[in-house]
Amino acid sequence: MTTTDERSDRLAIDDLRNAWVVLSTEERVLGFGLLSADQAEEFFLGLPGQDAAELLAALPAQDRRRWMRLLAPDDAADLIQAAPEEQRHPLLELLDDFTRREVSALLAYAEDRAGGLMNPRYARLRPEMSVDEAIAYLRRQAHEHLEMIYYAYALTPDHELVGVVSFRELFSAPPNAHVKDVMRTDVVTVDEQMDQEAVSRIFAEHDLIAIPVVDAHKRMKGIVTVDDIVDVVEQEATEDIQKIGGTQALDAPYLAVGLVEMVKKRLGWLAALFIGEMLTATAMAYFEDEIARAVVLALFVPLIISSGGNTGSQASTLVIRAMALGELRLRDWWRVIQREFVTGLVLGFALGFIGFLRVIVWQMVRPVYGEHYISIALTVFFSLIGVVTFGTLVGSLLPFILRRIKIDPATASAPFVATLVDVTGLVIYFTVAIIFLSGKLL
Amino acid sequence: MTTTDERSDRLAIDDLRNAWVVLSTEERVLGFGLLSADQAEEFFLGLPGQDAAELLAALPAQDRRRWMRLLAPDDAADLIQAAPEEQRHPLLELLDDFTRREVSALLAYAEDRAGGLMNPRYARLRPEMSVDEAIAYLRRQAHEHLEMIYYAYALTPDHELVGVVSFRELFSAPPNAHVKDVMRTDVVTVDEQMDQEAVSRIFAEHDLIAIPVVDAHKRMKGIVTVDDIVDVVEQEATEDIQKIGGTQALDAPYLAVGLVEMVKKRLGWLAALFIGEMLTATAMAYFEDEIARAVVLALFVPLIISSGGNTGSQASTLVIRAMALGELRLRDWWRVIQREFVTGLVLGFALGFIGFLRVIVWQMVRPVYGEHYISIALTVFFSLIGVVTFGTLVGSLLPFILRRIKIDPATASAPFVATLVDVTGLVIYFTVAIIFLSGKLL
Repeated sequence: MTTTDERSDRLAIDDLRNAWVVLSTEERVLGFGLLSADQAEEFFLGLPGQDAAELLAALPAQDRRRWMRLLAPDDAADLIQAAPEEQRHPLLELLDDFTRREVSALLAYAEDRAGGLMNPRYARLRPEMSVDEAIAYLRRQAHEHLEMIYYAYALTPDHELVGVVSFRELFSAPPNAHVKDVMRTDVVTVDEQMDQEAVSRIFAEHDLIAIPVVDAHKRMKGIVTVDDIVDVVEQEATEDIQKIGGTQALDAPYLAVGLVEMVKKRLGWLAALFIGEMLTATAMAYFEDEIARAVVLALFVPLIISSGGNTGSQASTLVIRAMALGELRLRDWWRVIQREFVTGLVLGFALGFIGFLRVIVWQMVRPVYGEHYISIALTVFFSLIGVVTFGTLVGSLLPFILRRIKIDPATASAPFVATLVDVTGLVIYFTVAIIFLSGKLL
Repeated sequence: MTTTDERSDRLAIDDLRNAWVVLSTEERVLGFGLLSADQAEEFFLGLPGQDAAELLAALPAQDRRRWMRLLAPDDAADLIQAAPEEQRHPLLELLDDFTRREVSALLAYAEDRAGGLMNPRYARLRPEMSVDEAIAYLRRQAHEHLEMIYYAYALTPDHELVGVVSFRELFSAPPNAHVKDVMRTDVVTVDEQMDQEAVSRIFAEHDLIAIPVVDAHKRMKGIVTVDDIVDVVEQEATEDIQKIGGTQALDAPYLAVGLVEMVKKRLGWLAALFIGEMLTATAMAYFEDEIARAVVLALFVPLIISSGGNTGSQASTLVIRAMALGELRLRDWWRVIQREFVTGLVLGFALGFIGFLRVIVWQMVRPVYGEHYISIALTVFFSLIGVVTFGTLVGSLLPFILRRIKIDPATASAPFVATLVDVTGLVIYFTVAIIFLSGKLL
């Protein structure tokens, strides 16, 4: 049973973890120093690469070797990648020769590729071993700090991957059967250069705990384990959400981003959108005479254009997420446009109807819209159909266009779509107004 | 090595998987029937609960038992939960007695709790066993279709969890040591009623492959494995993104949602926002006299209010995501407000400056704004500072308020924030205009 002491251990670690992001470097070192040796190890192993690198840099030089050698090769590579350029070589030097070679090989991969995620230590077997030999052999390998031995991989002498067997299968097989009789040969693999988002899609489709990474010659290089994929999925979703909100990806926890950095990440897009949105002032100026003659037209401008922006944001976020989940591909664009066109018409009709009622009911309560209130109501009705349908089409098409020209579809942020739709929305609105009101108010 | 035949097998499965969402039920049964027995098993095991339930319902009755019995208890429970009410009991009856009891127990948990995610079959040991005995004992258990034997759990006779040992640790321990000597006693556990989002946070913090689920008396009930957490993380992110985009969560792939359903999920929020946005027409009507006297004021309305909406959307999506990742808690609200206030002022100043320049430069090129163009430029400048700062504050505060009153913070969608800010933005703008322009244009 968990004793009271162990519970307070847990608490100490969790408290430090929760406070971590708001602590100064000195406070972090102090808090870390208060942990028992066991706690400190657990805590250190759970730190993200960036935080671990910063902590390590702040610890006394003579302690660093011990902490570096605690790490599995993929975690050591993450830490070194997160450290400033000039600290990387000294950190690498702290590792033992064997691990240093492994870590150097990992550092050659881009961080967001399968090769950059993988662990080079995995359980390996020969296909011609008996099950009993295989279990004994795995037991010897377990001493070498294999991170993950849920699956064992059968390799030829030149490291070609020929099969996989789970521990469960190996354990439940007759002891004198051979590995090649119990292994599966249709192994799901990923290429060492595969993008991490694609790797996470493969994990989601196959429900595996680990997937082997192979090179172009089908030689096995390592394994990616699903616990690293949880981080990838979370990180990719965070990037998408931040982009959808119209910010550059922060790449760090909210509170850990300094104010100057935060303003930089946010101002770029805002300024670009602001400059785009200036076109609304130009469009409005184009219809200045109409507004002067019928000020009532100006009253509905925010209502009309925001409806286009809202439906556009809806459509683009739905399409962006469906693309990220692999539910929609480029070739689906025409299906999507057809659906969204119908959806947009229905939504526009519904909102238009509410808008129409609003004008009629207001007029009955307090006659502010004058004798032509029916024409005004019709203007609102038809422009909403036009603006909402247009917004839906732009919002759903834009992510496809961006992907086609190799830009992240998530760039089709809610504010971006809203800005695009605002200008056109004004033109649609005033055009409809001229149709319904010329000879009356205009 | 993967032979050509096995490669085409892979392709057949992947093709079917990719096409799945757009196939009719008949086509699905047909495609599934074309797979070899091995392929069909792999494919069936990879299907989400909902799809598996639909496929099963469409297969001949005599085949169903075989497919149900292929599933691990947690997957069987998922499938049954996804099936229509009236099919659940018959499906449960297809299982063997032992599994049926396990699955019935799992069905008692809500789907989004730790208990609803867990697998009741895990590797168990007694603390007083020797390492050699433990390995032999695990080997016997492996026959019982344990889904996951990377960790083995040491239990007392009344199922209290006292320690955990990984296979690697067990394998590399001296054969005559005892389990209690090599096991870790400060086990990370989750309560059976813990929400799945909280469970996924614990996985992210601890980098574990599996976490034991315990009841209030610390008795072990099962394990949650990290591969199920990948689905949880993805699903929660999808819900958040869809809510941020101003839609109800779709709960299904984009193309699998029928048009009527799609309109329903989208229209609710849109209509609510539209009705809220009607306040802009009311606010504009309040300033109708000012607009009539200075039509030039109307020209900048879309520009000003959209800037508030954009900065508000930015702030709310950043805060929503940081909350979902556990980076921000309720008690951090004051820190966030302070940061966002400063950020909003800086962003407002920057955009205001661009807006100020826009008016001055336009006036120099084509004098459209009349003699009081400097006052107009100052109106634009100061209202942008006000609107942007206000938008940032509302956007960042709203998720905290929603969480405080136990509503999902992601409900603070980009369109919702934009709508809130639009009305106030108008009031700020016209108030600033009256200050700078009364006696001149007004």
